[in-house]
Amino acid sequence: MTDRTDGGIYSGAAPAEIAVDLLELVNFQEQGLPMEALTGLVQERLVPHLVKYDLPEFHSLYNFLPEKGALLGGAVALRYNQGVTNWQVSPGGVMLEEMCAQALCQLFGFPPESDATFMYCGTYANQQALYMALHRHAQKQGFDLAQEGIQGFQDPERLAIVVSQDAHFSLKHGARILGLGERTLVSVPVNAERCLDLGALQAMLPGLREERDIFCVVSTAGTTSTGSIDPILPLIEICSELGAWLHVDAAYGFPFSLLPELEDRFAGIEQADSVTWDPHKQFGVPIPSSLLFAKHGVEFERMAIYGEYFNRRDDTEPNPGLKSPPSTRPLTALPLVTTLRYLGLEKVRERLRSPLRAVRALSERLRNEPDIEVCHTPHTGILCLRLTPEGFPVEELDALQLFVYERIKQEARRSISMTRLGDKAVLRLVALSPSVTEGSMLETIDHARALAKEFKTDAR
Amino acid sequence: MTDRTDGGIYSGAAPAEIAVDLLELVNFQEQGLPMEALTGLVQERLVPHLVKYDLPEFHSLYNFLPEKGALLGGAVALRYNQGVTNWQVSPGGVMLEEMCAQALCQLFGFPPESDATFMYCGTYANQQALYMALHRHAQKQGFDLAQEGIQGFQDPERLAIVVSQDAHFSLKHGARILGLGERTLVSVPVNAERCLDLGALQAMLPGLREERDIFCVVSTAGTTSTGSIDPILPLIEICSELGAWLHVDAAYGFPFSLLPELEDRFAGIEQADSVTWDPHKQFGVPIPSSLLFAKHGVEFERMAIYGEYFNRRDDTEPNPGLKSPPSTRPLTALPLVTTLRYLGLEKVRERLRSPLRAVRALSERLRNEPDIEVCHTPHTGILCLRLTPEGFPVEELDALQLFVYERIKQEARRSISMTRLGDKAVLRLVALSPSVTEGSMLETIDHARALAKEFKTDAR
Repeated sequence: MTDRTDGGIYSGAAPAEIAVDLLELVNFQEQGLPMEALTGLVQERLVPHLVKYDLPEFHSLYNFLPEKGALLGGAVALRYNQGVTNWQVSPGGVMLEEMCAQALCQLFGFPPESDATFMYCGTYANQQALYMALHRHAQKQGFDLAQEGIQGFQDPERLAIVVSQDAHFSLKHGARILGLGERTLVSVPVNAERCLDLGALQAMLPGLREERDIFCVVSTAGTTSTGSIDPILPLIEICSELGAWLHVDAAYGFPFSLLPELEDRFAGIEQADSVTWDPHKQFGVPIPSSLLFAKHGVEFERMAIYGEYFNRRDDTEPNPGLKSPPSTRPLTALPLVTTLRYLGLEKVRERLRSPLRAVRALSERLRNEPDIEVCHTPHTGILCLRLTPEGFPVEELDALQLFVYERIKQEARRSISMTRLGDKAVLRLVALSPSVTEGSMLETIDHARALAKEFKTDAR
Repeated sequence: MTDRTDGGIYSGAAPAEIAVDLLELVNFQEQGLPMEALTGLVQERLVPHLVKYDLPEFHSLYNFLPEKGALLGGAVALRYNQGVTNWQVSPGGVMLEEMCAQALCQLFGFPPESDATFMYCGTYANQQALYMALHRHAQKQGFDLAQEGIQGFQDPERLAIVVSQDAHFSLKHGARILGLGERTLVSVPVNAERCLDLGALQAMLPGLREERDIFCVVSTAGTTSTGSIDPILPLIEICSELGAWLHVDAAYGFPFSLLPELEDRFAGIEQADSVTWDPHKQFGVPIPSSLLFAKHGVEFERMAIYGEYFNRRDDTEPNPGLKSPPSTRPLTALPLVTTLRYLGLEKVRERLRSPLRAVRALSERLRNEPDIEVCHTPHTGILCLRLTPEGFPVEELDALQLFVYERIKQEARRSISMTRLGDKAVLRLVALSPSVTEGSMLETIDHARALAKEFKTDAR
């Protein structure tokens, strides 16, 4: 299906080389180019520099290609280019979006009064969840955040959002944009499984409750670093005691809740006030495809700006654009619907399981190997590890991981990523597409081991 | 090219009827559907309910279909599904986006130090411009908005954003999300051309400067209601005196600055601190396609969250995702590039001119007709008017426009919109695609006149 570029995941060219290739494409001229010449330019100058996400050697990030069902919906969405926020712009698009949202609420086990809205990305979904939480908090204090702003709180400096140390940086963006500032984020340590440490939170709570005004707690279901799933049910109890909003950032992890064998880890998620999900991750539907779910659909009214003739409060037709700020959004629901209908849920679950199995098998195999430190027990499709060659000086281990990472990036035949867990630099493997196997990841690790030997001779 | 649905712009079905048609599509089952059956479902159950934006009778909103060049880029973007915020995810995509941004800065006459970033929609672009303005304002007062939040200001209640009465409601969304609240927005009346009234602003300024702390002024280049272009150059002078940020919301109007005959209206736009543009409007490129320009590219650093291993401050490769919150965005630059290269600038300008000419001609013709009130001199491709049949009671004129609008909507053979100008309800025609002509709009108006007669007999 993919076009392998001489065995690489992309051409391997450096920025300056790519710039030379693309120059002709962005050289906007008075006269147009014939279609054939333009197609040639795109195929020869751009496509080699795109990453082929469906290769078994791409196991670094959350990107994937649309399968056949998703491509069907994507092609129709492209051709008709429907904007779907308002009935008048696309009656069919609007209805499909609303009905898809309801069908997904049911699929994921949310209560009947729940609802969802399509968002542009997990970052904006998380941002909106924080805003809705703050808006509700303001309402409890008797004022309208939308009109008065943060000034309406008696002591805005007390406002706090509790997140885990491994929460996604989009929450920092959220706190910034919302005018709260990062100082609002209170970080809870993680445990050995890289989950929000409940004991630590419990210990922090009494002091925190005195000093701060916790209006929101965020649980991450599938952290970016390790794919770990934070506890949810205990946080629901804590939030209910605090009167705080529980948001679950399940941008990556949410679909795993459809697997019976992982159900327990997600226990309670349908009781969260809001949940973020990015189908454009392992579902491979065209970017953008994100959703924000709300246990109580009416909470979305916090976002609405009604007009006198457009988006009227008493319109009988649905206007899903009232549930989030954008006045234009594409027909994102369609490729998601066509992939779910084309594959069927049975095959969807199979496709979700395959990378999980690969990562689990890899993790178990590597645990017994002395030159690898497996950094966590994988909950989902991500594994972080360190190369620890025998006799290698501990103080140089971080530099070793970075060296190997940079070399692999340079070679452009495989793709891995890096992150930091506590005080350690680690290599990170993400299995997203079913073409990524234990074998393909093992080859990468063997290659990393070989590269590590070059560090020794180079650097010492 | 389009599939006309029995002469209508869409099927004309009501929500409940569409729901029946779509039910099978969102009925997520264990087993998948064969491709042929699924394609049939989409074609028969959904497509008739989509609006065909390229019909001459669609003249209500900012939607349009991709032409051949845009479709080429759209198809490649769909197939490879590149995420483009970070070099590692898509070297080719990232380079194309950055080079396209630079080429556009040059095309629109921004200074060499300018830069742009692709955004998801005009609403988020406007929101980000306001955030950047506020962040700079905070910096001048000696603190970091990203860390401290609005609390860092000595008297946050004084903060003000000056907008015109006709500014887009996305600015309300922006003020809400930013934690400022709508109270921050100070509205300036419009003049007879529905532009921000400079005289009124000058009269307001002395008092306003005493009471409030104006950190941003917004000029709209192409208002949603009438397509009017606010003054820009005089606002640049005012902003420079105030030390305020000038943002131009040119989501709709920006490309008209490429027409020599309209250059004067846009004088100074390249000196604005930031400009919003939505190519998915009259350029018809696939939604989403929006851009935020900044006169000083370094201003985008206000958005950046650097990591230790991902999006490092000292990365030698470009990471355009540092310029806005989303960590995933599609390869939006590609369809824009392919449409500009396929058509060439000469044809682009022709396509821009055609609806402008149609609206101007229509406006001139209608001015002489006694049963129509033309509500403004059109600057661009939008015309607002009122049906004023001879002898019709003035107090019922609003009801008449609404009646006609609702009837046209119900018939689904044409598409117009409604808005309110001052204390009057008006009908609104938007010419976006070159297939909309003076004749096609005139037919709609003649039909509206005929419908108006039914109001008389029905209601009185």
